[in-house]
Amino acid sequence: MAVHYKDIVAAAERISGQIRHTPLLESLQFNARIGGRVLVKAEPLQYTGAFKFRGACNAVACLGDVNHVVAYSSGNHGAAVAAAATAQGFKASIVMPQDAPAMKINNTKNFGGEVVLYDRYQQSREDIAAALAKTQNAEIIPPYDDARVIAGQGTLGLEIAADLKARDIKPHQLICPTGGGGLLAGTALALHESLPSLDIIAAEPEGFDDFARSLTADKRLANQAGASSICDSIVTPTPGKITFPINRQHVSGGVAVREEAVLEAMASAWQDFKLVVEPGGAVALAALLSGAVEGKDKTTIIIASGGNVDAGLFRDALKRL
Amino acid sequence: MAVHYKDIVAAAERISGQIRHTPLLESLQFNARIGGRVLVKAEPLQYTGAFKFRGACNAVACLGDVNHVVAYSSGNHGAAVAAAATAQGFKASIVMPQDAPAMKINNTKNFGGEVVLYDRYQQSREDIAAALAKTQNAEIIPPYDDARVIAGQGTLGLEIAADLKARDIKPHQLICPTGGGGLLAGTALALHESLPSLDIIAAEPEGFDDFARSLTADKRLANQAGASSICDSIVTPTPGKITFPINRQHVSGGVAVREEAVLEAMASAWQDFKLVVEPGGAVALAALLSGAVEGKDKTTIIIASGGNVDAGLFRDALKRL
Repeated sequence: MAVHYKDIVAAAERISGQIRHTPLLESLQFNARIGGRVLVKAEPLQYTGAFKFRGACNAVACLGDVNHVVAYSSGNHGAAVAAAATAQGFKASIVMPQDAPAMKINNTKNFGGEVVLYDRYQQSREDIAAALAKTQNAEIIPPYDDARVIAGQGTLGLEIAADLKARDIKPHQLICPTGGGGLLAGTALALHESLPSLDIIAAEPEGFDDFARSLTADKRLANQAGASSICDSIVTPTPGKITFPINRQHVSGGVAVREEAVLEAMASAWQDFKLVVEPGGAVALAALLSGAVEGKDKTTIIIASGGNVDAGLFRDALKRL
Repeated sequence: MAVHYKDIVAAAERISGQIRHTPLLESLQFNARIGGRVLVKAEPLQYTGAFKFRGACNAVACLGDVNHVVAYSSGNHGAAVAAAATAQGFKASIVMPQDAPAMKINNTKNFGGEVVLYDRYQQSREDIAAALAKTQNAEIIPPYDDARVIAGQGTLGLEIAADLKARDIKPHQLICPTGGGGLLAGTALALHESLPSLDIIAAEPEGFDDFARSLTADKRLANQAGASSICDSIVTPTPGKITFPINRQHVSGGVAVREEAVLEAMASAWQDFKLVVEPGGAVALAALLSGAVEGKDKTTIIIASGGNVDAGLFRDALKRL
């Protein structure tokens, strides 16, 4: 189940009418603060408010002979699959943790998905989804360890490559929020085709730095069980079986950021880029702002991967200003 | 000092390398709520966080034989002139009310402008600017009643027209936040060229509905003195001498929105479009959401004109969710 550059190009052609080409934002004030040039891929502006819609659209467009899909998700993937399935005429059941942000549960319902809640500390979402798929004769669309999904997420990298070329910008590095590694893998494959020397860095929340540690150890390591994080969209247990080999080849390394740095990054995105970014979507910006990745005298691409966050948490983040 | 369509096209060519072509955002959930199709022109994503940068860039690019510019502004125009002047190698002095949002005063300084504060209830900003211009041999760039500025703001309308054409969308109406009427005039001129039957509506805050009343009376009326509003960016005393005749020709009418509707619109822009919008920039969205303008079964273009707002007020708006 390898994924290649041509699969991403095919996905882009397949879903071009369904997804939004999101802008690369730039702030003169933010550049001055970093002492370098920073371009933010504004994926909260994607339909359903996160990059997940790309992979979901591609996976649904590639479905076999079923009329029902099942997905398990902390929120963004579920809403994306619900929206993509509804738009293409399929039924969608979404397995979500009962402590997911209310906004994400509501989003999934609003997009036409049937929501099945579970306890993320006691139950296995994969088992629940498998049982549902069997009884309903439905196909599962996994959140990241799936070639169709990875190819779909890679369309984000193709857009960055096209925009950089049009503006004649040669970046030094890219930082990507990383959970299961699907966005990272797709984006890395897409960008290394035209920018083979681009330094690609995975950003994760403290306590969920499985990708950073796995890249160092050169094997898939798991996070310690029981940790919690405000970065609900990227708290996955271990790198994917399909995503890890791709990322091993393409990614320089990973950094972990503290919760306070994430909240400050959300406040900065609000102030400097006028963009609403959720905690999991802000870890790449947090890595740059906190100095975990050096941006001085460099051109850095930051992926802001989603913007679905409850208002209470967002109001708390704004207290950092 | 009339402004014509060709002046806007010339402005677009003159400043194309300096300004950002901002996206037209769409939310499936928001469309469902309105019962129609809504496209939001996301001008908070413009450099300096507001449309004012367009007019400032064009005016600075058209300057005569001076090396210093003066502007008076509640904030966004000042920051825009400071940024445009600095980028093009001019000195900028900006006359600002001492009760302007702290963020806007800081923005102006950060963009290289020298800030001159005044009391908006006691002093005339026009007089202060005129005195400064005389002693410094500088040219004044007015906030709206200026052909160069109106033509620059009109580039926003050209972008909307191009994007609608590319996506084959035929809108019924456009709602535009309105203070002095520069953005409204430029946008109306630009859009009526290709969409002559588009219904163009001015949105204003309650207590500052001078344009709506002036359009009805068919003469320039003033707001009552002493009113205050959270919509600091569009609280002008009366329609401009240059902008009013243009808007009389092109604008169907005006609506006034209450402060609570503005705060709800800011919260909706945050939730549905992942966009940070300031109070004055949110009046058009507020007009639609509050029902002052009917969006059901129509395609409506909403201009969100800026996103420079203090965090405290924004946190307050998010309490509406």
